[in-house]
Amino acid sequence: MATTKKNATPFSDALRFEDGMRLSDRDPRATPAFDGDKADGKEALVAADDELDELQERLYAMSRAGGRRRVLLVIQGMDTSGKGGIMRHVVGSVDPQGVDLKAFKAPTRAEKKHDFLWRIRRALPTPGMIGVFDRSHYEDVLIVRVHDLVPEKEWQGRYATINDFEKELVEDEVTLIKVMMHISADEQKERLSERLERPDKHWKYNPGDLGERAHWDDYQTAYQALLQRCSPEGAPWFVVPADRKWYARLAVQQLLLEHLRALDLAWPVADFDVESEKERLAAL
Amino acid sequence: MATTKKNATPFSDALRFEDGMRLSDRDPRATPAFDGDKADGKEALVAADDELDELQERLYAMSRAGGRRRVLLVIQGMDTSGKGGIMRHVVGSVDPQGVDLKAFKAPTRAEKKHDFLWRIRRALPTPGMIGVFDRSHYEDVLIVRVHDLVPEKEWQGRYATINDFEKELVEDEVTLIKVMMHISADEQKERLSERLERPDKHWKYNPGDLGERAHWDDYQTAYQALLQRCSPEGAPWFVVPADRKWYARLAVQQLLLEHLRALDLAWPVADFDVESEKERLAAL
Repeated sequence: MATTKKNATPFSDALRFEDGMRLSDRDPRATPAFDGDKADGKEALVAADDELDELQERLYAMSRAGGRRRVLLVIQGMDTSGKGGIMRHVVGSVDPQGVDLKAFKAPTRAEKKHDFLWRIRRALPTPGMIGVFDRSHYEDVLIVRVHDLVPEKEWQGRYATINDFEKELVEDEVTLIKVMMHISADEQKERLSERLERPDKHWKYNPGDLGERAHWDDYQTAYQALLQRCSPEGAPWFVVPADRKWYARLAVQQLLLEHLRALDLAWPVADFDVESEKERLAAL
Repeated sequence: MATTKKNATPFSDALRFEDGMRLSDRDPRATPAFDGDKADGKEALVAADDELDELQERLYAMSRAGGRRRVLLVIQGMDTSGKGGIMRHVVGSVDPQGVDLKAFKAPTRAEKKHDFLWRIRRALPTPGMIGVFDRSHYEDVLIVRVHDLVPEKEWQGRYATINDFEKELVEDEVTLIKVMMHISADEQKERLSERLERPDKHWKYNPGDLGERAHWDDYQTAYQALLQRCSPEGAPWFVVPADRKWYARLAVQQLLLEHLRALDLAWPVADFDVESEKERLAAL
């Protein structure tokens, strides 16, 4: 069984966006840091469940003892890149009591009255939680840039604003894991086609998606720009090849695991006298 | 394998609280509507995953086509009755994108400025979602009654207020499933003892829990009262024997399943022309 081996390249190293890297050079069908096939990948995903469970519980437990550490997993990607599958199969494997999932849609009228980070700040995870953003503040330099929803001067300024914001989060004990689901245009066509073929998938299909597909190259340019410009210290991007769903799910799970492991989470020590509580209980 | 058989008594029938029923007559170790053992129960739990998944997705899909139906699962029970396990193993098996989990703690200062249903109304599931309340408005006739946190006249009035509120929900296409986790005092002692024995469980232990345990009989009386007084048409209580964790999890899952099945959820019909979309896609 080819699982995720100890001492193998960590996914964090294999997938981290490095200065000057070109998105167009990254193969969406590649499986970095993993040498198995689909069956191996599915097995490895399940095999990591228990460790993920325990680390999440430790993170949560520490917050009950006053710890402020929390995790924020940001998932970005084109339509059909598999964000929903990440939510269902990776985020869904974690205890829902420790997860705070937020999907960002087009901003509401109320949200538009504030700066673009307002709704993001309100959705940040509280201590001990694993926050998950399905889309995020990065839409404000993606769809907004591609469709000129605000003047260029305004969206150009947002890269620096985002960097300042994320530095602030990192200093405030937020472990940021930013993931770009990297899918090819061909694979997107396949997946849209499947949604049209299957009546049980029609509800996921939106004719507007094709309009966005026509802007494929503009979106790739916008992604390249944010990867290059928004990778401050402590908040790098990870580019996850997403043409193989099983690989993308495994990769995001392992990124989460590697970041949790690095926190050296211990069970909090009891702040009460254990022996005297045992005596009290015995008497009741 | 003794699984949940077709044509066997539905869990909804076996567990529904009926007028005049005495909580003290219900055995917390019983396994109504299921004739298997622990291993069978765990197997049955996993075996139902796919159906639950599909029904939840249909519920969600219907909301995208304008449907307003939603589900609200309310879980009440004494400390250590296994509410957390329900969240983790039953709610956690559902796609997190379709679940809205809310745990109610002691009301905050801001919440106390409003009537007791204010925070409840704000947490109701939106169309297509399965809302889950870990504790609920029933705390306002439980801990509040046991400790006289408001004058008796006030909590006495709440039963009728709750009935009106729940009737309103039922008329507004909310499928309500109210579950009382029925645990014995002996089993609670065992579980508190385990929390004290295991350092990885100390964080779950709160010396205040023993104070509440001293009020065991008062809580049972308060539960008996709300079961008897708050079972309006369309919003009955289900009393789930909870001394066996595996059974309680299976029972809650099956209650959810039976209620979803009864909704006759169909995939929504496409509101676009499928063939012309296929042509548009082929050209892109």
